[in-house]
Amino acid sequence: MEESVIRRLFDDVRAGVVSTDSAIEQLKNLSFEAIDDFARLDHQRALRRGFPEVILAQGKTPEQVVRIFQKLAERNDRVLATRVSAEMHAEIGPQLPEATYHSLARVLMLDRSIEPKIPGILVATGGTADIPVAEEAALTAEIMGHRVERVYDVGVAGIHRLLSQNDKLQEARVIVAVAGMEGALASVITGLVSSPVIAVPTSVGYGSNFQGLSALLAMLNSCANGMAVVNIDNGFGAGYLAAMINRKIENGGK
Amino acid sequence: MEESVIRRLFDDVRAGVVSTDSAIEQLKNLSFEAIDDFARLDHQRALRRGFPEVILAQGKTPEQVVRIFQKLAERNDRVLATRVSAEMHAEIGPQLPEATYHSLARVLMLDRSIEPKIPGILVATGGTADIPVAEEAALTAEIMGHRVERVYDVGVAGIHRLLSQNDKLQEARVIVAVAGMEGALASVITGLVSSPVIAVPTSVGYGSNFQGLSALLAMLNSCANGMAVVNIDNGFGAGYLAAMINRKIENGGK
Amino acid sequence: MEESVIRRLFDDVRAGVVSTDSAIEQLKNLSFEAIDDFARLDHQRALRRGFPEVILAQGKTPEQVVRIFQKLAERNDRVLATRVSAEMHAEIGPQLPEATYHSLARVLMLDRSIEPKIPGILVATGGTADIPVAEEAALTAEIMGHRVERVYDVGVAGIHRLLSQNDKLQEARVIVAVAGMEGALASVITGLVSSPVIAVPTSVGYGSNFQGLSALLAMLNSCANGMAVVNIDNGFGAGYLAAMINRKIENGGK
Amino acid sequence: MEESVIRRLFDDVRAGVVSTDSAIEQLKNLSFEAIDDFARLDHQRALRRGFPEVILAQGKTPEQVVRIFQKLAERNDRVLATRVSAEMHAEIGPQLPEATYHSLARVLMLDRSIEPKIPGILVATGGTADIPVAEEAALTAEIMGHRVERVYDVGVAGIHRLLSQNDKLQEARVIVAVAGMEGALASVITGLVSSPVIAVPTSVGYGSNFQGLSALLAMLNSCANGMAVVNIDNGFGAGYLAAMINRKIENGGK
Amino acid sequence: MEESVIRRLFDDVRAGVVSTDSAIEQLKNLSFEAIDDFARLDHQRALRRGFPEVILAQGKTPEQVVRIFQKLAERNDRVLATRVSAEMHAEIGPQLPEATYHSLARVLMLDRSIEPKIPGILVATGGTADIPVAEEAALTAEIMGHRVERVYDVGVAGIHRLLSQNDKLQEARVIVAVAGMEGALASVITGLVSSPVIAVPTSVGYGSNFQGLSALLAMLNSCANGMAVVNIDNGFGAGYLAAMINRKIENGGK
Amino acid sequence: MEESVIRRLFDDVRAGVVSTDSAIEQLKNLSFEAIDDFARLDHQRALRRGFPEVILAQGKTPEQVVRIFQKLAERNDRVLATRVSAEMHAEIGPQLPEATYHSLARVLMLDRSIEPKIPGILVATGGTADIPVAEEAALTAEIMGHRVERVYDVGVAGIHRLLSQNDKLQEARVIVAVAGMEGALASVITGLVSSPVIAVPTSVGYGSNFQGLSALLAMLNSCANGMAVVNIDNGFGAGYLAAMINRKIENGGK
Amino acid sequence: MEESVIRRLFDDVRAGVVSTDSAIEQLKNLSFEAIDDFARLDHQRALRRGFPEVILAQGKTPEQVVRIFQKLAERNDRVLATRVSAEMHAEIGPQLPEATYHSLARVLMLDRSIEPKIPGILVATGGTADIPVAEEAALTAEIMGHRVERVYDVGVAGIHRLLSQNDKLQEARVIVAVAGMEGALASVITGLVSSPVIAVPTSVGYGSNFQGLSALLAMLNSCANGMAVVNIDNGFGAGYLAAMINRKIENGGK
Amino acid sequence: MEESVIRRLFDDVRAGVVSTDSAIEQLKNLSFEAIDDFARLDHQRALRRGFPEVILAQGKTPEQVVRIFQKLAERNDRVLATRVSAEMHAEIGPQLPEATYHSLARVLMLDRSIEPKIPGILVATGGTADIPVAEEAALTAEIMGHRVERVYDVGVAGIHRLLSQNDKLQEARVIVAVAGMEGALASVITGLVSSPVIAVPTSVGYGSNFQGLSALLAMLNSCANGMAVVNIDNGFGAGYLAAMINRKIENGGK
Repeated sequence: MEESVIRRLFDDVRAGVVSTDSAIEQLKNLSFEAIDDFARLDHQRALRRGFPEVILAQGKTPEQVVRIFQKLAERNDRVLATRVSAEMHAEIGPQLPEATYHSLARVLMLDRSIEPKIPGILVATGGTADIPVAEEAALTAEIMGHRVERVYDVGVAGIHRLLSQNDKLQEARVIVAVAGMEGALASVITGLVSSPVIAVPTSVGYGSNFQGLSALLAMLNSCANGMAVVNIDNGFGAGYLAAMINRKIENGGK
Repeated sequence: MEESVIRRLFDDVRAGVVSTDSAIEQLKNLSFEAIDDFARLDHQRALRRGFPEVILAQGKTPEQVVRIFQKLAERNDRVLATRVSAEMHAEIGPQLPEATYHSLARVLMLDRSIEPKIPGILVATGGTADIPVAEEAALTAEIMGHRVERVYDVGVAGIHRLLSQNDKLQEARVIVAVAGMEGALASVITGLVSSPVIAVPTSVGYGSNFQGLSALLAMLNSCANGMAVVNIDNGFGAGYLAAMINRKIENGGK
Repeated sequence: MEESVIRRLFDDVRAGVVSTDSAIEQLKNLSFEAIDDFARLDHQRALRRGFPEVILAQGKTPEQVVRIFQKLAERNDRVLATRVSAEMHAEIGPQLPEATYHSLARVLMLDRSIEPKIPGILVATGGTADIPVAEEAALTAEIMGHRVERVYDVGVAGIHRLLSQNDKLQEARVIVAVAGMEGALASVITGLVSSPVIAVPTSVGYGSNFQGLSALLAMLNSCANGMAVVNIDNGFGAGYLAAMINRKIENGGK
Repeated sequence: MEESVIRRLFDDVRAGVVSTDSAIEQLKNLSFEAIDDFARLDHQRALRRGFPEVILAQGKTPEQVVRIFQKLAERNDRVLATRVSAEMHAEIGPQLPEATYHSLARVLMLDRSIEPKIPGILVATGGTADIPVAEEAALTAEIMGHRVERVYDVGVAGIHRLLSQNDKLQEARVIVAVAGMEGALASVITGLVSSPVIAVPTSVGYGSNFQGLSALLAMLNSCANGMAVVNIDNGFGAGYLAAMINRKIENGGK
Repeated sequence: MEESVIRRLFDDVRAGVVSTDSAIEQLKNLSFEAIDDFARLDHQRALRRGFPEVILAQGKTPEQVVRIFQKLAERNDRVLATRVSAEMHAEIGPQLPEATYHSLARVLMLDRSIEPKIPGILVATGGTADIPVAEEAALTAEIMGHRVERVYDVGVAGIHRLLSQNDKLQEARVIVAVAGMEGALASVITGLVSSPVIAVPTSVGYGSNFQGLSALLAMLNSCANGMAVVNIDNGFGAGYLAAMINRKIENGGK
Repeated sequence: MEESVIRRLFDDVRAGVVSTDSAIEQLKNLSFEAIDDFARLDHQRALRRGFPEVILAQGKTPEQVVRIFQKLAERNDRVLATRVSAEMHAEIGPQLPEATYHSLARVLMLDRSIEPKIPGILVATGGTADIPVAEEAALTAEIMGHRVERVYDVGVAGIHRLLSQNDKLQEARVIVAVAGMEGALASVITGLVSSPVIAVPTSVGYGSNFQGLSALLAMLNSCANGMAVVNIDNGFGAGYLAAMINRKIENGGK
Repeated sequence: MEESVIRRLFDDVRAGVVSTDSAIEQLKNLSFEAIDDFARLDHQRALRRGFPEVILAQGKTPEQVVRIFQKLAERNDRVLATRVSAEMHAEIGPQLPEATYHSLARVLMLDRSIEPKIPGILVATGGTADIPVAEEAALTAEIMGHRVERVYDVGVAGIHRLLSQNDKLQEARVIVAVAGMEGALASVITGLVSSPVIAVPTSVGYGSNFQGLSALLAMLNSCANGMAVVNIDNGFGAGYLAAMINRKIENGGK
Repeated sequence: MEESVIRRLFDDVRAGVVSTDSAIEQLKNLSFEAIDDFARLDHQRALRRGFPEVILAQGKTPEQVVRIFQKLAERNDRVLATRVSAEMHAEIGPQLPEATYHSLARVLMLDRSIEPKIPGILVATGGTADIPVAEEAALTAEIMGHRVERVYDVGVAGIHRLLSQNDKLQEARVIVAVAGMEGALASVITGLVSSPVIAVPTSVGYGSNFQGLSALLAMLNSCANGMAVVNIDNGFGAGYLAAMINRKIENGGK
């Protein structure tokens, strides 16, 4: 349950729009809410961590995704589901008419929040094929309240393309570097800036790429300091962490 | 070359203490300085990235470490060398009398800086055997200008030990979670806080630990969002990144 | 051949319902029975190990599964086939009308046994996507004569969900902990209880999860003592072992 | 803090031998006790899990091991440290005169407990080189209150050696099967008995054994049901789990 | 070109049925024959190694398989193609009407040879799902001139099934042991006999089986001497080697 | 932008056919050209490296491939797209009518260049199934201006096939050796010649081939000196490097 | 207990040199003999498999090796211990004065057998560094009753060295091919002969050799048929299998 | 036997300084020469491939290295031994007084050749710790007749250091790029030049570097075209290949 929703509830109670009993009822599952037998929604997460539980659609049935999405939407202004395949979206989209689907990033989201976006996050990719992962990162950061600068296809095979974006790199407060194959983009960017870099290896490539292992290992072994790495293709995780850092910066550590 | 050193140089020139020619001479290698044939010191790094080049002693000869350390010390207030084995320290220590050696963390450092430390970083470990890596992280953050809270031996086998430190966890602005074996500490901490977590897998363990692979994979696959991972046993990298984030928070993104 | 079936046979002989010759004929394949050329049913297994041979449907042709299922059903009250895909069930279901299919767990089973279920087994999962594996475990334990408590979606990203189930955890005599990704659930549960824990890593996840390797290694390297691990996604194996242990406990080691 | 020790404390209070204040003082660190900065002893563990925290000496300094061992010995009748190398023992042995060192198993232990041992555990090995790991398992189970039957060097290359021990196998309530190389021993034993089997892969072998990987994978993929696996060379973990199961059996699930 | 075919050619020349010119023409490609640009048939192989080149259909286009099969059939009495999928057979079968397809083993073969089969080869499997690989081995040995004894589904989970076949095992001159999962069958058989054993790991299994790696490593690390291993699922290679050994035995080393 | 195109532009300006303004306009994106948001074409690459950017179609959408292909075709005489699947070609072929598709090599190319081809490159394969990768190498070298000798299906199982091609091997200035399975072809060829050999491991094989790992490792560990290796199935990379070397040889190092 | 020893016993009984009681006593441990607690000697092995149990010294204590060696020597004419390091031999050599130590092969052996050696085995190596493994194979075959032809340092980097030994290759009845690095020797030899080839990958090499993995995978994936593989550096296993095959050939399958 | 040596021999015969018989004697082992039983020197290699056989000292005994070195020195002007440890050199150095030892590169060499060096090869490293491997490459190329430009410590963490060397990069005809950790140096260099690049991954690093795997995979998956890779730490192989290419360039493909 997001803080904004709880604030509204208290305001409504004070204004007499909502009765105390009804308010209590709404708070009842604050800790967590069991859905049938298959899920325990961690409603307290939004308060504790700043953003409601996110749905990883992969591995769940369409029915489960719909049920969880609806339950979250009852108590939060913002709901995010990741790894929603086109097939799944075709099936569940009509049941979630308020939600927006981003097909490249495979993200389904609902954003009723009206707070202004915080600037400072930049997402870069080595190539065109890395964009789906980058978009997952960017959309995640956006729904979490941030404005995202995108700098795509600036891989090291033509390093002047990256150097020409130096101004944007220097301005960013947090950078998400997305790259497959040898993943060198993250090292080169980190060497140029004084901001933290979150590296996302992608599974783009073939052969001894081993589904992203080459980029993952390269990023973990970077000779440039000031970088950390998330799972292969985990654009969501990188966007989430970037948003947390950028909010801390914005709020002076609060 | 650290900004503080350059500022002092300009002040000295303005005060007439240093001549323009001498100042230029001192700046000559600002970009980088070649040492014999074996190294090119990136003196610009301190300006560009906020901290001078750090020496990874492992893989270098003792002579090389001494030479680089001395060259860095000429132009910076702070010099850091990591992975300095006890054997190497026995050999090079006498040649670097100003430097302090931390045997557990295998870190050799020189810190003439006088700026006050920034609070906000917490370093936690799963077990006692993870402490050397944690100390490398803590000392790195300290020489970079931060105050570090240490919470050691709070692994998940007795989770009340971790929960009892909840206040400290909530207060921290950046957390470094150091753990070997199954590395679950990082996930559990991340699930409790709204601050970014940098996870450091350690090689502590045996058998199918595969020198840290188990903790590395566990951390990369965490179900808790808001965490990123550095290389196995890379306390230095985690401390460095934590320091960068904490400085950004302190300075409001500058 | 289950002990109960053999007992019934002797009872029938004593009661004169079955002739000695006919009884001998029925016992003839007690050791094992060859089916065409493709299988040797280990009918003695039920006597020796307490439960008849179980059919791993994956890798067998539908015809083979049907033949083996029928042969086992001739001599046992309980027959279990695992990893029966929906496609295979569509083909063989009509030929095995007595059997029940559980689509999530991909289990096909026949249970004519009437003995009361033994309480004491608890099956927990980290997430919703782990439920199919958990159900395979639970159904296996159930057909083997046990009552199963299910506690699903209590992963460590929101650890209060797990702690809220502490009573059930303490009551259980054997616990099956099912989790993918970083598999931390098993460590945390093991640290809380004095009962044996059987950990089941699942292939839930992506990227450096490497089809379950991350959870497998994490569980093998747990810092919590009192846990052992089965193969990735092997809910059946965990349920089987839990049932063996629980029966030993119930029977005082017999 | 073991239950027996707490019972004694209450008895002493009732008998007036110990004052209430002194008793409270002794209980003060019941939850956990911080030792300097390097460890937090989980004294509650003995109550919660039935046995005090065990010291994994590997990765700790000799001083740390001594300090922790002494602290545990103050509040418990039984203290166990594993992976104590001969070198470490030479250094710390004199400071822990009460403790007994088992060089083959690399185990250092103190056992003041007087309760009778529970029968039911059998430890088997494939070869002679597996004995150190097996002894770690056996000694762990023994200090935890059990009697252990040892059946060593019964590997499958001469299967009559194993079959000749069939009586002992049938009598055991829990079996620990220790084997390196192809680890087939565990499968063969499991196929013969109705008791749970805990399989311990060892690093015995060379080449494509990959330090125990061959036995580990073989055991995880056993076609025999009723077995689970611990980490490579983790005799301690197997002995611990066997003891937990055997105690549950002895106590009827309590 | 098989020796029998060349012998017939000389006989025909001596009998005047074939002219010298025509005979020379037929021998022209004895060394190898290029087919278009895509293959160089090693016709000398039959003379040099005792059996004509075998077609690995996987990775070739259907047209290529047909062309090579036909070319081989022109000069040899026996032609063998392995890994011919059902789809490919549907396409090429009509063009090779003389050939026989074995769907389980995915083998397409033509055998005009009339020499009597040599006894001595036994093929065993651990389970029913291993039979396709075993049949590939058996059919390969058969077309190479041997009689094959099949002993299927005798895995170690019910070891009396294997022991009951001891007579056949002792009689065999060469044994092919086919098993997936933990692959223990090969070790147990090797420990019982004085004949060479060729072990074939199969990809039967799931999870940490890693597509046959578990059985492969187990077999390579067998504690039983007198066994060697072929590639995962390589029934063909095992049958081929068994045939070579059995022929050497039959011919006293010739 | 290829040098030949720029020369033509200058010639046109000198001839008055093109105005200065128009020429400048054409050069404007010389460094790189952004296409929508998804790509930054490195037009300078042709000048810097001798050949325009190449499109790796895999991982891009059909629309992206078409757009990039067209943009490149505007400024270059030669355009190459690799890993264009038959499905993608069916979709994009009609939009790129000038381009030629090679289905085996999955290559789509446009070649308006008229310069004569440089001889000296030889491409060899171990088997028929390696030909698609070899053709990718050969076509790449051809569009880059070279004549390619093909020697296919000369694997080491019948080494006389390779030895019979010795003259061609000795004549070649650069050799591309393409092989799957154990990849021994590259070692044997390298041992015979004094020319550089570029080894391409292919994913041809099965089982412990691990999608090309066996050939990759074999080639990296060759005992023959004078060979280097590219990624698994990377015919394009090998053809590209061969072309660079051969051009250097032709031009005396220019 | 070797057959020859048992025959001698019966002869002695018939000759009245040995009493029946004494003979029975000697046979008492025919099945197996327990040594203290650490070993169960499989004395029946010599009868069942043709050669007594062999001692793998690695992983055993010097005392254990001495005890087992002596016990075997009491009942057999031939005793073999492998992987006896120089250090171990220095310690145990004096206690086994009859035994001969081969330092390169790390083999300790006792051979009182007088039967003539059977010709037919050839052992080849790729390089000089493979010789220790090859010698282990050769010495094993020799003590098992065979004459061994050695052809060393004939690797594929200079293939004429191998081809010059063609006569020896054609004459051999069984070939052991020992090679590290890319292990191509085994494939090339297998392609040249009609005899079975046992391939031994060695750990010779460095880097991506991964302690023998490159040669192991190469050999498992050989495109040449008629080869099987043993563990990395397992010269003993190859020599043992070669001896079994050669004896079968010599004895016409007996 | 190097061509220069053979030429000298013919000159001596023509001049009457050497008799025909003596000349024939010297040529007798032209093909190869057996040394005792442990090596077959491929003397023809120098003629066939342009440089005599090189000794990989690792894995050979000191005696073997001395013998082979001396035999090669009898017939060649240049002899090279690689991976000669300091320990081995201490032992064999005095027996090879003409040879020069380079301790960093672990190379022992003898160079009596007087032909002028060919310019064109550049060797670069990412860091100081990569220099030993780079020196092995440089020294190899030098003894093979080339002049080598060294550019060390120009890794991507401070990319201006590399860009400042652009002139040297552009001038080189062949580049050897040596780097550990994430190995990004090779990609960045390749993207800048039109010359072939040979990438050498080093084992410099720790943790998930896995002894050079990270750099190896990164280099194999480079997005920059025109690069190929040699084994981890294989400076020798890279220098050898660079020399072959540079000689081809110098000689116009001869």
